[in-house]
Amino acid sequence: MQARTVRDYIRTIPDFPHEGILFRDVTTLFADARGMRLCVDQLLAPFAGDRIDAVAGLEARGFILGGAVAHQLGCGFVPIRKKGKLPGRTFAQDYDLEYGKATVEVHADALEPGARVLLVDDLLATGGTARAGIALLERLGTEVVGCAFVVDLPDLGGRAALEAMGMPVHALCSFEGG
Amino acid sequence: MQARTVRDYIRTIPDFPHEGILFRDVTTLFADARGMRLCVDQLLAPFAGDRIDAVAGLEARGFILGGAVAHQLGCGFVPIRKKGKLPGRTFAQDYDLEYGKATVEVHADALEPGARVLLVDDLLATGGTARAGIALLERLGTEVVGCAFVVDLPDLGGRAALEAMGMPVHALCSFEGG
Repeated sequence: MQARTVRDYIRTIPDFPHEGILFRDVTTLFADARGMRLCVDQLLAPFAGDRIDAVAGLEARGFILGGAVAHQLGCGFVPIRKKGKLPGRTFAQDYDLEYGKATVEVHADALEPGARVLLVDDLLATGGTARAGIALLERLGTEVVGCAFVVDLPDLGGRAALEAMGMPVHALCSFEGG
Repeated sequence: MQARTVRDYIRTIPDFPHEGILFRDVTTLFADARGMRLCVDQLLAPFAGDRIDAVAGLEARGFILGGAVAHQLGCGFVPIRKKGKLPGRTFAQDYDLEYGKATVEVHADALEPGARVLLVDDLLATGGTARAGIALLERLGTEVVGCAFVVDLPDLGGRAALEAMGMPVHALCSFEGG
């Protein structure tokens, strides 16, 4: 029997949050001790030679992964949150949703300029949130070393958009069809 | 010069989210490599002799801490989320807010019955969310080994309420006055 891959731990739930959507659920990956360990190790593998000063994570599932990845690296963690959640002075960035807009924020003093940051999230779809996160991290004067995701949905174009910006993108597995 | 304690890394922001509230902001603790490490080590210290099969964390700041703590223990992580966020079949538990009610959920198949679980969050105030989280974990048939928090606000009564249930409570620091 072959050992399970990261992809094998992810379950698919149909019609969530809307009819016709196949939701890729990483909670079954994170709940498994071996799955979680595999995930963190594989996320960091391509950045093994890089200096990383901090990990930034996108609310909310990116916080779980980000906490674990920061702990593995022995560095700090910076949350990129939905509007109105951070108590200090923030920078804000809008991004497009399927219908309308949303806003993410980062504390304006979260990191020192020049810090090298790895951005993590569970899933890369259109890449809208990730691009907003990168814009915020660059506004802090930090250097985004790359973006790491558990799941890539390549048909939604997020990876292509990030790579077109020159951003290194790493994903552990992909699902066709979005 | 004395080394900074976990408490020293936490900043206080007045009038967030409402006038008159002193918000204890742990983002400055998590963003610091030494702060984050200290926090995880100290959170786990009293549970060093216990078997812990999984860490459960409360949305959203409990996810950051929970990811790091689960990674340190080499175990899985289970999110306890606000209503409507989890894609699979869930158990739900209401709890009281200052005005009105809120609901948290856990996946009904998140853990095996008999699993020993540590519940983590950044802050213990009235303990309403923590008690709802414990109720959900017990509904899964798991055993809650204890609750660990970065900050305790003892004047709001959360610790007393949890301890009255016989729940071991561990907090790294406290602030008087709520």
